[in-house]
Amino acid sequence: MHIPAPLSAEVAEQVVVVLGASSGIGRESALRLAERLQAAMAGIRHCAQCRDFSEAEVCAICASPARDRSVLCVVETPADRLAIEQATGYRGLYYVLQGRLSPLDGIGPRELGLDRLGQRLAEGEVHELIVATNPTVEGEATAHYLAQLARQKGVRPSRLAYGVPLGGELEYVDRGTLSHAFGSRTEIND
Amino acid sequence: MHIPAPLSAEVAEQVVVVLGASSGIGRESALRLAERLQAAMAGIRHCAQCRDFSEAEVCAICASPARDRSVLCVVETPADRLAIEQATGYRGLYYVLQGRLSPLDGIGPRELGLDRLGQRLAEGEVHELIVATNPTVEGEATAHYLAQLARQKGVRPSRLAYGVPLGGELEYVDRGTLSHAFGSRTEIND
Repeated sequence: MHIPAPLSAEVAEQVVVVLGASSGIGRESALRLAERLQAAMAGIRHCAQCRDFSEAEVCAICASPARDRSVLCVVETPADRLAIEQATGYRGLYYVLQGRLSPLDGIGPRELGLDRLGQRLAEGEVHELIVATNPTVEGEATAHYLAQLARQKGVRPSRLAYGVPLGGELEYVDRGTLSHAFGSRTEIND
Repeated sequence: MHIPAPLSAEVAEQVVVVLGASSGIGRESALRLAERLQAAMAGIRHCAQCRDFSEAEVCAICASPARDRSVLCVVETPADRLAIEQATGYRGLYYVLQGRLSPLDGIGPRELGLDRLGQRLAEGEVHELIVATNPTVEGEATAHYLAQLARQKGVRPSRLAYGVPLGGELEYVDRGTLSHAFGSRTEIND
């Protein structure tokens, strides 16, 4: 993430004028918005442990004593982390890549902080690495790299189930997903 | 499926007039359409083996010697069968329920031909029953019934993989699917 320097007073004033004029929210509201924006830009940083956005040195989830430190879930973006946090009862920790491997764009393991992730896995506290990258081409490549990294450090890698979404009708599911779901069918147990 | 009796000449004439007037396709085209419709209504029946629509006693897939008779895939509708046939390299046979269990609507095992399916499973030719009902509430109930039926007859039941669709972004996947995909995560093997 690129965090810009706080706005200069002149630029802030311009922003206020533009916002006020375009949205009709008034000069005072726009000024408050500008102040909040400045405060956020000055105060937000990456959590030292999970690389998610945080206002403290370590974010609330990483700092919580209630979370299970033996499971680490790797996601691409803070939005993915939020989705998992809201949808599931997951009580482990996260690692936010803030991107995905994309050599053509110059984004390699170092840019995603994978060297630090490797160190953390080597420390032995983590037993399972849940790879929750998106099921896109670049996400899959990243997942492959992460799984190799985990195995090198003696950590068990796992990934989310891919297939037909719940509540969907087979008829309207895309071919790739249907083919994958068919190929990776599982035995029904009682 | 309710197949109505062939249209009477009067009704057919009315259909032709309405179609011709509304679509501007002309009297001759509408007459041809009406003939085809009548022929289809008179000629289409259920395949004696898989219950799919067919013009012959046994449909092309059930009659094909190239298909693997030891695997049977149960789907709800002909459209589902078509989707699987187009998306996957499946070479087994199908069984089309033409619906799903729905006791409140008076649709029980008999209406879906499950007694005949049970007989077929008992014959011993089928070794795997792939349950490909939709992942909806009624589809799941039907799947449960089918799995029990298969086990009773000594056939191994299996089901499609459910989870995050390929190419999707976790952020936009519905909560139920994400929760399920997270809960049924699998170990990554090389």
